[in-house]
Amino acid sequence: MSEVYAARRTRLRDRCNAGGSAAALVSRPANVRYLAGAAPHGAVLLLGKREDLLVCAGPPEDRPTDGRRDETLGVQVLPGPGGDPAVAAADLATAQGADSLAVEEHHLTVARHRAIGSVAPRLRLADLAGAVEQLRVVKDEEEISCLRIGAEIADQALGELLESILVGRTERHLALELERRLVDHGADGPAFPTSVATGPHAGRRGHRPTDRRVEEGDFLSVCLGATYRGYRCEIGRTFVIGTSPADWQIELYDLVFAAQRAGREALAPGAAFRDVDRAARQVLDSAGHGERLPPLTGHGVGLEIDEDPQLAPSAMGKLDACVPVTVEPGVHLPGRGGVRIDDTLVVRPEADGGPELLTITTKELLAL
Amino acid sequence: MSEVYAARRTRLRDRCNAGGSAAALVSRPANVRYLAGAAPHGAVLLLGKREDLLVCAGPPEDRPTDGRRDETLGVQVLPGPGGDPAVAAADLATAQGADSLAVEEHHLTVARHRAIGSVAPRLRLADLAGAVEQLRVVKDEEEISCLRIGAEIADQALGELLESILVGRTERHLALELERRLVDHGADGPAFPTSVATGPHAGRRGHRPTDRRVEEGDFLSVCLGATYRGYRCEIGRTFVIGTSPADWQIELYDLVFAAQRAGREALAPGAAFRDVDRAARQVLDSAGHGERLPPLTGHGVGLEIDEDPQLAPSAMGKLDACVPVTVEPGVHLPGRGGVRIDDTLVVRPEADGGPELLTITTKELLAL
Repeated sequence: MSEVYAARRTRLRDRCNAGGSAAALVSRPANVRYLAGAAPHGAVLLLGKREDLLVCAGPPEDRPTDGRRDETLGVQVLPGPGGDPAVAAADLATAQGADSLAVEEHHLTVARHRAIGSVAPRLRLADLAGAVEQLRVVKDEEEISCLRIGAEIADQALGELLESILVGRTERHLALELERRLVDHGADGPAFPTSVATGPHAGRRGHRPTDRRVEEGDFLSVCLGATYRGYRCEIGRTFVIGTSPADWQIELYDLVFAAQRAGREALAPGAAFRDVDRAARQVLDSAGHGERLPPLTGHGVGLEIDEDPQLAPSAMGKLDACVPVTVEPGVHLPGRGGVRIDDTLVVRPEADGGPELLTITTKELLAL
Repeated sequence: MSEVYAARRTRLRDRCNAGGSAAALVSRPANVRYLAGAAPHGAVLLLGKREDLLVCAGPPEDRPTDGRRDETLGVQVLPGPGGDPAVAAADLATAQGADSLAVEEHHLTVARHRAIGSVAPRLRLADLAGAVEQLRVVKDEEEISCLRIGAEIADQALGELLESILVGRTERHLALELERRLVDHGADGPAFPTSVATGPHAGRRGHRPTDRRVEEGDFLSVCLGATYRGYRCEIGRTFVIGTSPADWQIELYDLVFAAQRAGREALAPGAAFRDVDRAARQVLDSAGHGERLPPLTGHGVGLEIDEDPQLAPSAMGKLDACVPVTVEPGVHLPGRGGVRIDDTLVVRPEADGGPELLTITTKELLAL
């Protein structure tokens, strides 16, 4: 595995050097993990002129690594407590002869940036910007395999929940139950706080579970995901509770389903982010729900649950093959509830069969 | 409740004005919540020259508030997606006639700080530094009451776990079980990831639960906390599994217990942070464990689990009454395991009975 991380660092180093920086300091945890194979709490990665170093805040005992660390990477542990690994890394960059250092200005705080400037006044600080995030967009098959396993785990957890009695249980309990099942099936943990929304809450994006109990006639929308070896996927489904959904429920469900299918079918290498968004959005828009739509209808997933690209009306750029994204349109009618349907898919060329659906739980409207 | 938040903002405004800033921008979520009663995702608080405003990234439907929002506070929602509330707030500060704005340089990233500078070039940006964190150190009785209820919930969850069969269950399952019980008893959720450590893992600070199963003869150390109305407490205990602890286990337990008691007894208004730390630390140090000790033996708790003050050898400052802190020394012997004992207490003057213990689960060495 070590070669994978070393190759990623080489790609980043090439970009930095092309941008005129001799060294780079990576502080955003998911970026550190991507390039080093592990991100102990507070650790930063120095891409130095002579040597790459993972600079950690504490001894490994207190800061357990959580992944497959690259054994070829040097590790430096700060001698005392309270120090900032980013400041120590800047010092080490100077010691390696660098005169410039690219830092992640979208992650480093003003105070830390200033502390780096104080300890290494002759170091010219440049902006690494989203260079690592850009490298992370297209996944290799190893990464996709982690997402695929995570999606299987989420499918299993959801499937088991559907077989149990739901009426009378609270949103909070159902969410906790799902999270327990994710871990039972081998997840590192939930990919994000599990959302269970019943009745008037159903269909709300990111709804935080409350003590409301599931009732007959409710819409029930569930959004969960597993983290597997650091990779995070997402699945969302909406069900009705009871034997026969009301007409408005069937109508709304069919509409959101059509929007979600349109989004999925628009996924292809070369498709503009905004065109995928529009494909899903216009179905809901033309049914009069334009005002109530969320700012995006999908996003990338990987080491973080909300990565580039954003599938939104003003997003710039085009999809590549091997980019995993969610397609997750929804409509929420205040006071009544609503529907969200959310899949994680990997963009694949048509010759390879088109988009690969990772979350395979049925999208029929189930009455539970 | 609204008056509480308004009074806190007045205290902060006085500090800002004394520091020469006409307006302040608070971005750190716990600080926003402290001053506004709620912190919707991404929201910032502007203390303006004419009016205070909570500036939110999205409509309230997608960004539910999680607390008792101050109804007297103005709320501004960004019109479109993708905007930064901090940038919008700087614009609003200018519109209210401010020529200077104090920002949280320890929280704002370099990129956001620059964006604020671009949108409001005539605004002089100053550093609010830890002004809000300092206000948060001493709690009012309402805040302490939330911590007290959170501690009761954690005690209950732990007590129930101790009554169940433990041998053969994994660290992960026990941790999930504890978190479920926290929510059962009314917590918003866990205050931090619950740590369950068995056998050779026991006594490690912040140990992440693994699939290791509890075995006869193990030390079992557990650290958990409840969040109640946003306030986070912490309790840690160590047990032995089986009928008769080994001599080394009894010896190590008694030592850590003595250290923890010494730390608790050192808590008093006016006591230096470092003296409290030393009281606990020197007990372990003189027994030859100095090398293995964590950087701190306790810390403040409140809206965040790890707040000021830090009880550590190099910490500067003294305790006040009504400051809740943890006292949590521990020793971990690599390959063998160890002991941690952790309480949340509120500093009180001796006339009021001395430190108030919030986490009342017994600290006897229980054999389970």
